[in-house]
Amino acid sequence: MDQTTFRHELAQQLRVDSVRASDAAGSGHPTSSMSAADLMACLLDGHLRLDFTRPDDPRNDHLVFSKGHASPLLYSCFKAVGAVDDAELLTFRAFGSRLQGHPTPVLPWVDVATGSLGQGLPVGVGLALAARRLDRLPYRVWVLCGDGEMAEGSTWEALEHAGHEQLDNLVALIDVNRLGQTGETMHGWNLESYAARAQAAGWRTVEIDGHDLAQIEAALERADEPDGRPLAIIAATKKGRGVAAVEDQLGAHGKPLKDPREAIAELGGVRDLRVSPTAPTGDSTRHTFTAAGGQLPTFDPGEQLATRKAYGQVLEALGNRRGDVIALDGEVSNSTFSELFRDAHPERYFEMFISEQQMVAAAIGLQARGWRPFLSTFAAFLTRAYDFIRMAAVSEADFCVAGSHAGVAIGEDGPSQMGLEDLAMFRAVHGSTVLYPCDANQTAQLVAAVADRPGISYLRTNRGATPVRYGPDEEFPIGGSKVLREGSDVTLIGAGVTVPEAVSAAEALATEGIEARVIDLYSVKPVDTGTLRRAAEETGAIVTAEDHWGAGGLGEAVLGGLAEHGVPAPVHSLAVRDLPGSGTPAELLQQAGIDAEAIAAAARKALAG
Amino acid sequence: MDQTTFRHELAQQLRVDSVRASDAAGSGHPTSSMSAADLMACLLDGHLRLDFTRPDDPRNDHLVFSKGHASPLLYSCFKAVGAVDDAELLTFRAFGSRLQGHPTPVLPWVDVATGSLGQGLPVGVGLALAARRLDRLPYRVWVLCGDGEMAEGSTWEALEHAGHEQLDNLVALIDVNRLGQTGETMHGWNLESYAARAQAAGWRTVEIDGHDLAQIEAALERADEPDGRPLAIIAATKKGRGVAAVEDQLGAHGKPLKDPREAIAELGGVRDLRVSPTAPTGDSTRHTFTAAGGQLPTFDPGEQLATRKAYGQVLEALGNRRGDVIALDGEVSNSTFSELFRDAHPERYFEMFISEQQMVAAAIGLQARGWRPFLSTFAAFLTRAYDFIRMAAVSEADFCVAGSHAGVAIGEDGPSQMGLEDLAMFRAVHGSTVLYPCDANQTAQLVAAVADRPGISYLRTNRGATPVRYGPDEEFPIGGSKVLREGSDVTLIGAGVTVPEAVSAAEALATEGIEARVIDLYSVKPVDTGTLRRAAEETGAIVTAEDHWGAGGLGEAVLGGLAEHGVPAPVHSLAVRDLPGSGTPAELLQQAGIDAEAIAAAARKALAG
Repeated sequence: MDQTTFRHELAQQLRVDSVRASDAAGSGHPTSSMSAADLMACLLDGHLRLDFTRPDDPRNDHLVFSKGHASPLLYSCFKAVGAVDDAELLTFRAFGSRLQGHPTPVLPWVDVATGSLGQGLPVGVGLALAARRLDRLPYRVWVLCGDGEMAEGSTWEALEHAGHEQLDNLVALIDVNRLGQTGETMHGWNLESYAARAQAAGWRTVEIDGHDLAQIEAALERADEPDGRPLAIIAATKKGRGVAAVEDQLGAHGKPLKDPREAIAELGGVRDLRVSPTAPTGDSTRHTFTAAGGQLPTFDPGEQLATRKAYGQVLEALGNRRGDVIALDGEVSNSTFSELFRDAHPERYFEMFISEQQMVAAAIGLQARGWRPFLSTFAAFLTRAYDFIRMAAVSEADFCVAGSHAGVAIGEDGPSQMGLEDLAMFRAVHGSTVLYPCDANQTAQLVAAVADRPGISYLRTNRGATPVRYGPDEEFPIGGSKVLREGSDVTLIGAGVTVPEAVSAAEALATEGIEARVIDLYSVKPVDTGTLRRAAEETGAIVTAEDHWGAGGLGEAVLGGLAEHGVPAPVHSLAVRDLPGSGTPAELLQQAGIDAEAIAAAARKALAG
Repeated sequence: MDQTTFRHELAQQLRVDSVRASDAAGSGHPTSSMSAADLMACLLDGHLRLDFTRPDDPRNDHLVFSKGHASPLLYSCFKAVGAVDDAELLTFRAFGSRLQGHPTPVLPWVDVATGSLGQGLPVGVGLALAARRLDRLPYRVWVLCGDGEMAEGSTWEALEHAGHEQLDNLVALIDVNRLGQTGETMHGWNLESYAARAQAAGWRTVEIDGHDLAQIEAALERADEPDGRPLAIIAATKKGRGVAAVEDQLGAHGKPLKDPREAIAELGGVRDLRVSPTAPTGDSTRHTFTAAGGQLPTFDPGEQLATRKAYGQVLEALGNRRGDVIALDGEVSNSTFSELFRDAHPERYFEMFISEQQMVAAAIGLQARGWRPFLSTFAAFLTRAYDFIRMAAVSEADFCVAGSHAGVAIGEDGPSQMGLEDLAMFRAVHGSTVLYPCDANQTAQLVAAVADRPGISYLRTNRGATPVRYGPDEEFPIGGSKVLREGSDVTLIGAGVTVPEAVSAAEALATEGIEARVIDLYSVKPVDTGTLRRAAEETGAIVTAEDHWGAGGLGEAVLGGLAEHGVPAPVHSLAVRDLPGSGTPAELLQQAGIDAEAIAAAARKALAG
């Protein structure tokens, strides 16, 4: 079989197998798979350098299906290269199968989960950055994008960053099949509209007929001649290509074909071709960064230091101790203090400008290559990237996010800048860890601890300086808490800025003969249920205070922790209830009813009631 | 004074007042204000058609400061037009002042809150859509953008949509002052890079020196000659313009000037010029859509219908009854069933393609003009727009978001498509309402109720068909719940898909002599604390079951509701704990431990323990 015939046959096999898998599942997206089959057949046959038998080979190219709903095509490719067999292919979407409705890293050849559109290209930027700036290996990153998902702003962030970073190891294959789920996309088959946008961002572009194998070959060969620009192959295709009943038809999205037998016949029947992607060659040594060593900083009790600044100092020191630690920031590194890491380790710092989605996506890609990212921006602006954080958990990604400027305690900047939902947002991420230190030494230990923590860790830091409360040798395990004061009448629980408020409240209550226990609940998730349980059993009431909306934060973490162990207790939750404005931190803590006075008042009321 | 002199003097006054306000506050962003002062002076003097004494005049132009941190400039403009006085200007950022750190609609001339960058332009698209497609009035929308925020993908979504919708009533003034918070932006003063991107999206562009009053005037005049394309005025400016100590200097972002007295002298001293923007003229009649009337649909008990489909049917009928109701969807209207509204009321339907941020931003703009938006997409993809939803609450916006395909109950599509954090996310929005109906009649009533509800309402709908459980005349007030079965041994609480599971569990328990009370807690926020309290007092234990992560959802809403009223109770929360894969809905509900069997088992265990 000559190359053209082979590729045509392979493409038809990928289509047939997409139809078969979706038919076996009774659901799925065969037509979205069929449009890109020719692109993938050519990519697999001679361009993708990936040893499927050694998925961990650092020289391997990476293939990301940003249009994750084209999973039947991806799995058909895995079958064609011999990575999965036909029986497994037909388990598509079945309970327990690795071949889920949308790809996840349960499969060793899938770096990251996709299926929320517009994520694959920004994650691809992360993988390409890893190749270029960290691993320093010549592997390439191929991202299959749908045309519909180009409407997501995140894809434009990716175009911008890839152009700016001159990632000529990144190729976007844009499958312009014209049809979205409900109708035509904004640009239909106007390839030029995509090309103009990508060119404006500094990309090379090639516009082709995505079903013309010669044109595809010529376009893919462009990737072998890098010129400092990422490459966009913009391919006009037809959804459902090859089966007249669905080809270029509306209403055929996301469902198996009505007559799979006829469709398979029309496509030339079932085949069992094998394609062997080129194995990568050359040196497989990843670049490593020398760890100079040194100690993590410690802080003198009594010193005044914002936890965000402690974060920066510790991160810098962590970078000295570990060559795998890297940092990303959303153009606020002088506020989050990641600038300390940037200045000490410029090769491992990534300026992501004001694009939080791209920041998180890049971290997903970078950690997929074994690097250990620490991300930072204002806590409030992490809401911008929630879909990426959610999907990072599905990707089983490991990284730490630091959100600074949390709560009304930021003061004058007003509500747009106050992270007041960050604890709820991160607690509701699968497998997450949520930490909220109140002093510099605690921050130091927690930053070090999350560097080895699986999953998404969130560290909330504060804008204002707070006194160093703890000695440098105290320990703060994740899942722990610190009893700052013993007492048997009532328990006051705070974290971060409300810790000093709770301590002050306890001091005021003591003058009235009320002995309050004070707990610094720095580990919001997992929460220290043992200590909470004892507090519930040994004191008459619990008052929680948090610089966060009432839902989903510290108060509910306490309630959940107690409920988990079947310990009912009267818990009085103080939180931000009304929309704050500008003011001094003290004015706003008072207005929100989470300062020492409010905590003491709540304790008195609880004991009276 | 001739026009040029007047405008120069006015611009200098805006700079001086920005310096003064920031100095009085001890914080703020004077240098980011100074770069755009010439643009604003020219805009106020002869271009902006806005009667500040009648902010509700429907003919008024709209001015959005997307770079919300330039609030000193905005407030200095308000002073220059006589809307606020000098004394109030100097209350900038003080507790209780309307002049907050970033603009909010506490001020009658501010349509929407800004301060999270990249939001003003997409919101401006919403305002411009309101003018063009709904109000049908010739007002214009002027958006002042920073250059740094152009890195946010949301601005590119806005460029795309404005171009696609041919919004030539929208003008973006891009203040390219080159410097971000920490360094130079990605494109510096390369105006062409912005122009190429905007042109690619179908915009007219003008590149100017943003301190040359003649060039600004010529550019602004282009807005008077609309040609079907939105207009981008791309202005090279200098941050801190006019004060040598800070002009075009790094390190001068977001802080008052060190020597304000010298700066004011350098700017020519304090002035008290007044500028009178042109009052709008012409017909002030807003277009209205005829409400044909008709009843909301009702559903026959026993019928099988997905709540998402009921949502679509009710929304269509609501559109018949009310001309102010509009709908937006993120290119999944055949999944959310907003297509029923689209087909019945095409003039009031907005296809937002796959850009959830732009969808929410457009809704913010549309509701600011008095329209009543209903937005829909998959619950999972609403995470993409969390920052916009958060800011919508700061804008005190009123609209309803419907998230379909919630939870593991969607089945085969897998975790990327499962909304499992939506309840937590929306509960942690200020002033929000969170509803989760289990049948079609309940959905109907709740959709009607949220149409008049202030704030952000969230309605969670399900993919799969469920039996119509309730009669068409039953009432479901927001904040209520429904006791489906009385019982005194244990209480089972569900919502949405877990309601039938709880009912089945109660039936199974009854055969064992255990009488379970079953509560349909369709109103997750506000929650029916009275009914919860009675359940806690009258039954021995409470079991909650939710198709959502354990944090921040139904279980914690119950715990919070009980705690609020000081009722401690043993609550056993069943929720999704492990990462799901693909499978049938029944398999996945079972695996997650939230099906009837798991609920019954939890009840038995609770009673045994």
